[in-house]
Amino acid sequence: MTSLPETMTAIEISTPGGPEVLKPTTRPVPQPGPGEVLIRVATAGVNKPDALQRQGNYPPPPGASDIPGLEVSGVVVATGRDVTRLTVGERVCALVTGGGYADYVAAPQEQCLPVPDGFDLVRAAALPETYFTVWTNVFDRGALKAGERLLVHGGSSGIGTTAIQLARALAATVYATAGTDDKCRACEDLGATLAVNYRQADFKDAIVAATAGDPGVDVILDMVGGPYLARNLELLRRDGRLVYIAFLQGPKTDIDLRPIMMKRLTITGSTLRARPVAEKAAIADALLETVWPLLGAGTIGPVIDTILPLAQAADAHARLESSDHIGKIVLKVADL
Amino acid sequence: MTSLPETMTAIEISTPGGPEVLKPTTRPVPQPGPGEVLIRVATAGVNKPDALQRQGNYPPPPGASDIPGLEVSGVVVATGRDVTRLTVGERVCALVTGGGYADYVAAPQEQCLPVPDGFDLVRAAALPETYFTVWTNVFDRGALKAGERLLVHGGSSGIGTTAIQLARALAATVYATAGTDDKCRACEDLGATLAVNYRQADFKDAIVAATAGDPGVDVILDMVGGPYLARNLELLRRDGRLVYIAFLQGPKTDIDLRPIMMKRLTITGSTLRARPVAEKAAIADALLETVWPLLGAGTIGPVIDTILPLAQAADAHARLESSDHIGKIVLKVADL
Repeated sequence: MTSLPETMTAIEISTPGGPEVLKPTTRPVPQPGPGEVLIRVATAGVNKPDALQRQGNYPPPPGASDIPGLEVSGVVVATGRDVTRLTVGERVCALVTGGGYADYVAAPQEQCLPVPDGFDLVRAAALPETYFTVWTNVFDRGALKAGERLLVHGGSSGIGTTAIQLARALAATVYATAGTDDKCRACEDLGATLAVNYRQADFKDAIVAATAGDPGVDVILDMVGGPYLARNLELLRRDGRLVYIAFLQGPKTDIDLRPIMMKRLTITGSTLRARPVAEKAAIADALLETVWPLLGAGTIGPVIDTILPLAQAADAHARLESSDHIGKIVLKVADL
Repeated sequence: MTSLPETMTAIEISTPGGPEVLKPTTRPVPQPGPGEVLIRVATAGVNKPDALQRQGNYPPPPGASDIPGLEVSGVVVATGRDVTRLTVGERVCALVTGGGYADYVAAPQEQCLPVPDGFDLVRAAALPETYFTVWTNVFDRGALKAGERLLVHGGSSGIGTTAIQLARALAATVYATAGTDDKCRACEDLGATLAVNYRQADFKDAIVAATAGDPGVDVILDMVGGPYLARNLELLRRDGRLVYIAFLQGPKTDIDLRPIMMKRLTITGSTLRARPVAEKAAIADALLETVWPLLGAGTIGPVIDTILPLAQAADAHARLESSDHIGKIVLKVADL
């Protein structure tokens, strides 16, 4: 074990509120528990759930750090008991249940993945949260198959840019929605056949027109919620799947259940953070086998919108909530 | 080929309306098409979709007979081209897309199953529609596993009595709802751990109380619809599945989508009649392998409420719609 400091800098949520409540603080360096490694953080990814947590609307699950941050890249600097997969000095990216906005964070060994070939630690930090989320929702729960059609709402978000590329790389046809023409162009540049500016057109009508003859899609990844439900159900083809990962415009609406039965649809969804390590490990194994080679080959890759120093976490959140970004926002913690 | 008559007696829907619109008529004996067998009908099962069709609310799918009746038992009297699985003289029960209320009906060979050991043709006719429906919805789509908990709404219906027994036989714990204490007793006699009289108690509260400590169920088979949705979603445990096969109290309601994401639920459903032969064949194969041995051994069996002659189809529908029945109503067509 290298000699480690006793305290570190982290960004805490000083009180629930706007971006400005994110404040640097000093905390003890975490101790890796059984099966965990301690990571010296190079870069921390910024994600929507971090902003919800900051607002007081998404409390960390039991046992998780109160420090925000769900993904990091860095170097393993210590290992807990029963760690068999990793050794000190290895460069990793990791999914964590919190605590990423800090100099150090502990992570279960199963939630660490190698830095893909040719990736620096900045780009690696942008991978875990979106790739775990997209894989488990689009490919596991949504069961998207080659040759099928995927609709990604919020196509220019971190999740969206990942879903578009990954579905395209695995031979699906992808449609997307986004809120500006620039964002729509970005989605199409990433491989979407058509991206609809939802401020200018009805996404259902536009996609029905684009798929005339055999209209509709097979899987929809939705983070909008209530206002899109009826149109999503109309747009799904027989045996289609609608997968929820957030409700940015609220979770309540009216429903007519008939299309579920008549078209044999599936409505499902999931959150990642609360799931047990074993389930995250299974997702990590699938990513390593199927997705990491595509990242290493340059077929797909994260879209980085902004890199800011850790101390400017508040600015990062302000940009995240402006919705001006395309792709991921990350916080640089250390040059490693 | 035996010599067959040119015409037969069937029960037609003379005009959309109440049970009294079901009238005997004379029709040509059907010709079995490629891959089809012609069945001399012994007994025809009566099902809820027949009543919906009679009311004008459930038109037959393209190519199906306008004569009601989705299941029969009987004897193969002729075979079409490319029939390899069956020969003239075999006793079968069959799922048909319509035309069951008649002396003769044609059925794809894949939708015919042998009469289970020890069964007469009356009991055999009560099997196809409910067993195909329960299998594909509870076990395929709902993925009910041994050790899990199933809630069956409408527990005393033909579908309900089948689902209770089959889930119990395959080592699930079963809860049910029904509308009278007698029906609840019948459900419990068939293997339900608890049947809730929904007129006397809130089913959600009652089942939460009965499962205290680890409350809820894993799969719900629902034919009620809108009014039960919110309570169904509350009652489902993590990774739970809600499967719709009808909307007897209407398909429209309010929904809060959050539990779908937070508990990783699945809402799905299906109708049987419109599905292609290949999919029905896959269900038939699963039934033959897993369920027919249980029927032959007497572990499970159909609950027959009433046997009436074909000419009294109107009385059969009146009883079906009275909701006084427990289990299946069947029409005796011929002694074979």
